[in-house]
Amino acid sequence: MELAETRRRRADRARQVADLLRREIVHGSFGDGHLPLEAALAREFGTSRNTIRDALDLLRDEGLIERCPGVGTTVAAEKFPHGLHRLLGLAETLSEHGEVVNEVRTMGFIEPPAAVRARLALPAGEPVVYVERLRRLNGLPLSLDLTYLVRDVGEPLFDADLVHNDVFVLLEGIAGQPLGRAELTIEAVNADAHTAAVLDAPRGAALLMVERLAHLSDGRPVDLEFIRFRGDRLTMRGHLSRTTERE
Amino acid sequence: MELAETRRRRADRARQVADLLRREIVHGSFGDGHLPLEAALAREFGTSRNTIRDALDLLRDEGLIERCPGVGTTVAAEKFPHGLHRLLGLAETLSEHGEVVNEVRTMGFIEPPAAVRARLALPAGEPVVYVERLRRLNGLPLSLDLTYLVRDVGEPLFDADLVHNDVFVLLEGIAGQPLGRAELTIEAVNADAHTAAVLDAPRGAALLMVERLAHLSDGRPVDLEFIRFRGDRLTMRGHLSRTTERE
Repeated sequence: MELAETRRRRADRARQVADLLRREIVHGSFGDGHLPLEAALAREFGTSRNTIRDALDLLRDEGLIERCPGVGTTVAAEKFPHGLHRLLGLAETLSEHGEVVNEVRTMGFIEPPAAVRARLALPAGEPVVYVERLRRLNGLPLSLDLTYLVRDVGEPLFDADLVHNDVFVLLEGIAGQPLGRAELTIEAVNADAHTAAVLDAPRGAALLMVERLAHLSDGRPVDLEFIRFRGDRLTMRGHLSRTTERE
Repeated sequence: MELAETRRRRADRARQVADLLRREIVHGSFGDGHLPLEAALAREFGTSRNTIRDALDLLRDEGLIERCPGVGTTVAAEKFPHGLHRLLGLAETLSEHGEVVNEVRTMGFIEPPAAVRARLALPAGEPVVYVERLRRLNGLPLSLDLTYLVRDVGEPLFDADLVHNDVFVLLEGIAGQPLGRAELTIEAVNADAHTAAVLDAPRGAALLMVERLAHLSDGRPVDLEFIRFRGDRLTMRGHLSRTTERE
């Protein structure tokens, strides 16, 4: 009974320490990629070395750090920040972090299911352009994007360079006006076996899933997307106001 | 070779169908909780019944639907929407969906680690109030929140009703001013064994993880939180503008 309670407390403390270290890692606070020694962390967090080891185990299981005898604890993976302050394409938001290259897995006209037609406010019988892309940053798979585009702005994309450009930027050139507003829903889901294989992630890996409907600045919905980001490689960052609604 | 290609295409199609059905389920489009029959779905999506079955399997594995012989396919779980358009506490944002009740697992003064002190802009030696809460909606575990509060607004919380109130609302009463702006980072992580047990979720379940630093309207940071939402029970919803930065 007492042992169970001690274990529970230690696990709670380890999570608490892990969260603070995760924040430091994700925001690049360990400049040279080395975490302090266990003894130093134990002092810093006012906890036992066993608790520190448990916290580091949690972060290792998330793929954030590696622990090597003699070498110590090092940051294993970078998590890239996707801006949540305004509507941005992936290459735009990650421009400081490297090159985004897109592999077009599928592209063609389809008869849209009713759910797509309703979201894009299209009459029955109007085809849409469907594009499926695997997106890599500096060669590493980052996201799998399923995109439905209304015909007039989607059709010219067959002649565009989708490998090196965000769809957003191409759409704005085709439409002759900027995009306006987008609605988005953010979820966390486990990767199914097939998606995991495509993203080169473990089966069951946590994915950040975004559904996003983008409108042109004249208010017409043109671009419906279902995006799966690898949770171990991407975070979304923004800010909220208590008193001012976002417009 | 050809069989592998056929399998790959079918898995891609199943994911495409699943994403559209997920959107319908999450937004409550199946009013009575029953999905259409497989044959109707196959017509709707212009695909084989095998692909529909694969798509439904994906959603069942996510815990969103149940499939019973004779009964058909029914929605198994509600995903609740957390507003992302302004800074809101959990009970505030889910007020239309039921009652939030908080279990305070831990509460006390702690000597903050450097990472907390820096975020809350505190001098060395200044204690903070640490609160850990398991939050339930209509009796179901929804999130585990780790919260660090500056002393002057945190200390009066020892006498407040934390079980039935959001910290945000209590803080505003104590500080005599509204909250202002908050910075947030959103991630998807897999639940470790201990966290999974606390949230009554399967080990490895995808969690939506939010780190949030809230300031009073005078700009002082007062509330640093690390929140783990069950990915199968919560989505975040908002909108973005292409041309206007959020303030």
